[in-house]
Amino acid sequence: MERKYSVFTDHVGTFCDRYCNAYSEKSYTISEKFDRIKSIPLISAVDLNMTKDYADNKDEVKESLKRTGLKVNSVMMDSTADRIFRQGSFSSLDFAVRKRAVEDAKKAMDFAEELGCSTFAVWPGQDGYDYMFEADYIKERTLFVDCLKELSAYKPNMNIALEYKPKEPRNKSYIDTMTGTLLMIEKSGLDNLGIAMDYGHSFFSGENPAEAVAILSMYGGKLMAIHMNDNYGSWDDDMIAGSVNTLPYLEFIYWLRRTGYNGYITFDQFPYREESRDAVNESALWFDYLESLIDNADMDEIAETLTKKDGVSASRLMRKLIMK
Amino acid sequence: MERKYSVFTDHVGTFCDRYCNAYSEKSYTISEKFDRIKSIPLISAVDLNMTKDYADNKDEVKESLKRTGLKVNSVMMDSTADRIFRQGSFSSLDFAVRKRAVEDAKKAMDFAEELGCSTFAVWPGQDGYDYMFEADYIKERTLFVDCLKELSAYKPNMNIALEYKPKEPRNKSYIDTMTGTLLMIEKSGLDNLGIAMDYGHSFFSGENPAEAVAILSMYGGKLMAIHMNDNYGSWDDDMIAGSVNTLPYLEFIYWLRRTGYNGYITFDQFPYREESRDAVNESALWFDYLESLIDNADMDEIAETLTKKDGVSASRLMRKLIMK
Amino acid sequence: MERKYSVFTDHVGTFCDRYCNAYSEKSYTISEKFDRIKSIPLISAVDLNMTKDYADNKDEVKESLKRTGLKVNSVMMDSTADRIFRQGSFSSLDFAVRKRAVEDAKKAMDFAEELGCSTFAVWPGQDGYDYMFEADYIKERTLFVDCLKELSAYKPNMNIALEYKPKEPRNKSYIDTMTGTLLMIEKSGLDNLGIAMDYGHSFFSGENPAEAVAILSMYGGKLMAIHMNDNYGSWDDDMIAGSVNTLPYLEFIYWLRRTGYNGYITFDQFPYREESRDAVNESALWFDYLESLIDNADMDEIAETLTKKDGVSASRLMRKLIMK
Amino acid sequence: MERKYSVFTDHVGTFCDRYCNAYSEKSYTISEKFDRIKSIPLISAVDLNMTKDYADNKDEVKESLKRTGLKVNSVMMDSTADRIFRQGSFSSLDFAVRKRAVEDAKKAMDFAEELGCSTFAVWPGQDGYDYMFEADYIKERTLFVDCLKELSAYKPNMNIALEYKPKEPRNKSYIDTMTGTLLMIEKSGLDNLGIAMDYGHSFFSGENPAEAVAILSMYGGKLMAIHMNDNYGSWDDDMIAGSVNTLPYLEFIYWLRRTGYNGYITFDQFPYREESRDAVNESALWFDYLESLIDNADMDEIAETLTKKDGVSASRLMRKLIMK
Repeated sequence: MERKYSVFTDHVGTFCDRYCNAYSEKSYTISEKFDRIKSIPLISAVDLNMTKDYADNKDEVKESLKRTGLKVNSVMMDSTADRIFRQGSFSSLDFAVRKRAVEDAKKAMDFAEELGCSTFAVWPGQDGYDYMFEADYIKERTLFVDCLKELSAYKPNMNIALEYKPKEPRNKSYIDTMTGTLLMIEKSGLDNLGIAMDYGHSFFSGENPAEAVAILSMYGGKLMAIHMNDNYGSWDDDMIAGSVNTLPYLEFIYWLRRTGYNGYITFDQFPYREESRDAVNESALWFDYLESLIDNADMDEIAETLTKKDGVSASRLMRKLIMK
Repeated sequence: MERKYSVFTDHVGTFCDRYCNAYSEKSYTISEKFDRIKSIPLISAVDLNMTKDYADNKDEVKESLKRTGLKVNSVMMDSTADRIFRQGSFSSLDFAVRKRAVEDAKKAMDFAEELGCSTFAVWPGQDGYDYMFEADYIKERTLFVDCLKELSAYKPNMNIALEYKPKEPRNKSYIDTMTGTLLMIEKSGLDNLGIAMDYGHSFFSGENPAEAVAILSMYGGKLMAIHMNDNYGSWDDDMIAGSVNTLPYLEFIYWLRRTGYNGYITFDQFPYREESRDAVNESALWFDYLESLIDNADMDEIAETLTKKDGVSASRLMRKLIMK
Repeated sequence: MERKYSVFTDHVGTFCDRYCNAYSEKSYTISEKFDRIKSIPLISAVDLNMTKDYADNKDEVKESLKRTGLKVNSVMMDSTADRIFRQGSFSSLDFAVRKRAVEDAKKAMDFAEELGCSTFAVWPGQDGYDYMFEADYIKERTLFVDCLKELSAYKPNMNIALEYKPKEPRNKSYIDTMTGTLLMIEKSGLDNLGIAMDYGHSFFSGENPAEAVAILSMYGGKLMAIHMNDNYGSWDDDMIAGSVNTLPYLEFIYWLRRTGYNGYITFDQFPYREESRDAVNESALWFDYLESLIDNADMDEIAETLTKKDGVSASRLMRKLIMK
Repeated sequence: MERKYSVFTDHVGTFCDRYCNAYSEKSYTISEKFDRIKSIPLISAVDLNMTKDYADNKDEVKESLKRTGLKVNSVMMDSTADRIFRQGSFSSLDFAVRKRAVEDAKKAMDFAEELGCSTFAVWPGQDGYDYMFEADYIKERTLFVDCLKELSAYKPNMNIALEYKPKEPRNKSYIDTMTGTLLMIEKSGLDNLGIAMDYGHSFFSGENPAEAVAILSMYGGKLMAIHMNDNYGSWDDDMIAGSVNTLPYLEFIYWLRRTGYNGYITFDQFPYREESRDAVNESALWFDYLESLIDNADMDEIAETLTKKDGVSASRLMRKLIMK
């Protein structure tokens, strides 16, 4: 299978957290970020998160794409960075805020179309709540879906990918798990909605990401994007992909292939203290290696092992996969 | 609102774990368990888990019900205790095992009907997997639903309640979360399927149980039973209900009432080292107290607070609820 | 027992996270923060975190203290916000960085002395690591203690309080748990070292904070400061103190009193989306209420219950405490 | 380095949990268990857990050792299976129970001596508590250490290894973490006390096991035994060693070697549904493979990488280790 890797442009930049406002003195322009990405051998595309900087500099984005020859895998709206969305974007109780969120979404969709990109992504990080007795869950979730309907109708032929995450920045997110998101999509009746799956979000939510891919496929859901990183299982540590987990990645890759995913793997990580371009390069090298292990595997043998329902056989198979 | 409490009959018995085969020297007959339950002032019904002991002694069960005047809230099949189900019941790859599971289910449904009980419950504890690369998730989940279809058709007017739990005894369960279970039900198209919600299972899965109730109601799911206990958030500790959490229970009770739940609260706990009858009594006293706090609350004031989307207002409301 | 509440001055300010650089448009001067704190009836002291803003404006701090009459409970050095410490402060492999950290500490200790404050606090948020095979744990921990020795000798009569936290901003912190920190202190042989215990850090690390206080007392450790907030058990959510947990706080307060703690309770929370002054007020009201429950309790009855080693008795006691 | 593997004899037997009293129909005699172990090529020793079955059949144990030629790595007392210890063994408030625990320990120590085994192990699974306000932590911990003093004096030349675990069967254990146990040992002043480290217990407690080994070494603690298994990070799943984690094992092995551990690796797992002998064989094959990766590594290169304090370098090193 062709291996295709992409990265969010900002993830070769500089990072901050709630304590330190910039871990690196150097900050990069959009053009510089593209050049840094271009220098990573295994990366052939980018994903764009339309923060204010990008929305205000679309020409620089277009020029950078042309110069580097990188493709655009997806365009994501940003509904997290601006404090206007602090109590929600599409689920906000404030009509003006929802209106602004929908407008921002439409602009991002327009730009995606302009770039020839068919996937628009939403990660509604602020849509959720922090305290008990703080939110009317039914009301806010209904408002959220109402906005999605408007977006769906705006460009019926564009993929709209929802990225789920159990928490952060909110203590509890509305779009939180694979099945919760699939259920919402199913109930919405909107055909062009699907999933942007962040491996780390899935993993630290307690899901087995491989099984989540199987469930998505089983129920006819659309896997529109994969965001890749790694963590220790209790938080979105956003580490170099492959730096913690090994076998869970192999099962994940197996199910991606078995269910026919043939899109990009997009690296999406926060190397606060590392050289960020080099950290993306590491992720690509790890993933390329792990994919090669599945390339070399006998897919029939795997399928046959799965019908034994036996832990010893599963262990033996995994040893074989990794010892090659 | 009327407060109605029930308990699984075995939960006034003796408990074991993987290390100790009986924490109490004394073991109780079915009749003795009923008498112990009858002695708890706030309990007016029982739930029955049809392990071999119960299946073999249906007359003793009926006589005990008559003698004590306790009602039957639900009848649950047991698909966990018998080692035949160790690699799954309805999802087993072995046709003979699935057949046996369906037969056991039908017998339990027959018994429920005989007792005038309209709710049949399933907690498929062994349906899941332990190791990666051990299971074909799509195949096993499909087999599971196929069996449910047979049960649904067997008694179309009986409630079939699925109890979800993220793990234990399997490292990963197929029926694992509220939304995962609702999605499965939705996709099955079976009208008489619904949810048996165990508060502790929901809580240690990372769900906010109150929000899970709201989601269930929003999507037209049926809440057929509530199992109550408490834990520290990372495991199914099955402690006395109310002995750990306070405010989360209040929000849970609020959403139960707001969404119109008017069934029993069934205590379902494992007091390994405690006098088990007294432990159930404690749960009933805790829950009765916590429900009284919501009885005394101004439901309009709560609803209004939920529209403020403000943590300080939520905190103030919670203080008011508990300081009464 | 006298109830004494304090707050870190910055916690009535404005907050950010890794996505949003300021959740509120308004930012407050040091003087304004003092005035906001002064307006909270139950607060009588402040704790100071010596970020650059404070280090550069010591006169404003002193003037504000004089104007408001607020006391100073502790002075904390800041070794997290400046990117120079991104790979550690006292444990940095770079001599120049350690030197800077020690100098900053000494300046903060000087300022504490000038303010008549006897407690200097250290929360070494950057001292730890993110990746496996990234750090020589023995070497870095040795360097850390070497710096503490220098501080200890600099002001032998000043309390030096170490604040532990299992993770964040590092994926793994060196000063991570009560027993890990006590062991380090014990082995250092330094008499003026003790603990600044953040309830939330302890709680989300998996410790029972009440038991941690007992262990500290049992081993002759010094409890020099208490930082108070609340969370859901898996992360440092830094919520309003009392907004999630109830019974765990009561056991914590009981053990604080039994082991003779008579210092301040300092609120230390991140109300990203709330009016921050009001959020501190809520914490104070919650804690005042919870402390009143222990004020009204019969301490002998509690002590007697603890000798029964029985969950039912414990449950009954907790109901009695809270239903008063 | 010589690779030496052992296994607890019962871990090639039959398993139960709180729901199912025997996952396999077949149960094995002590002699049969030894024969099963003997059939595993990489295993050369056993560890003995002195449950009643073993205490009553010491001759069978001795005969089996002679017949198979297997060595004895450690003898462990059993203070978990007998319900007399349900509220604690050495920490029990009941003098008679503590007396019995000490007697059982001495008998196990005598047997160890008779077998020429110098390591006696204690896993005090029942010493802890379930509910808040259930235990006087200081009193019970003091009683626990008092019993250890008696054991230490009984055989001053025998290693006494304490095995820590954060929870299960108690919701909270007294001997819970590496640093908590080291602190207790340090404060006890007993020279022949050390640590039996169970990798899985360490891992699911939130510790980095590799760092825990470094800390133990740094503070002069004695690593007397290693128990090996695997889990998903939130519970003691006791799976085949190597079936989940890969890179964390490599760092663990590195630190074992660097700190001079040269004892056995003992497999200690609960393959409920698997052929248990085969599951141990899998663990041995996994571990043998993982140790070979470190055998082939350049130890100087690793040590040098650790002084770079750089995540990209750490990632690169890990790729190199595993891709060999």
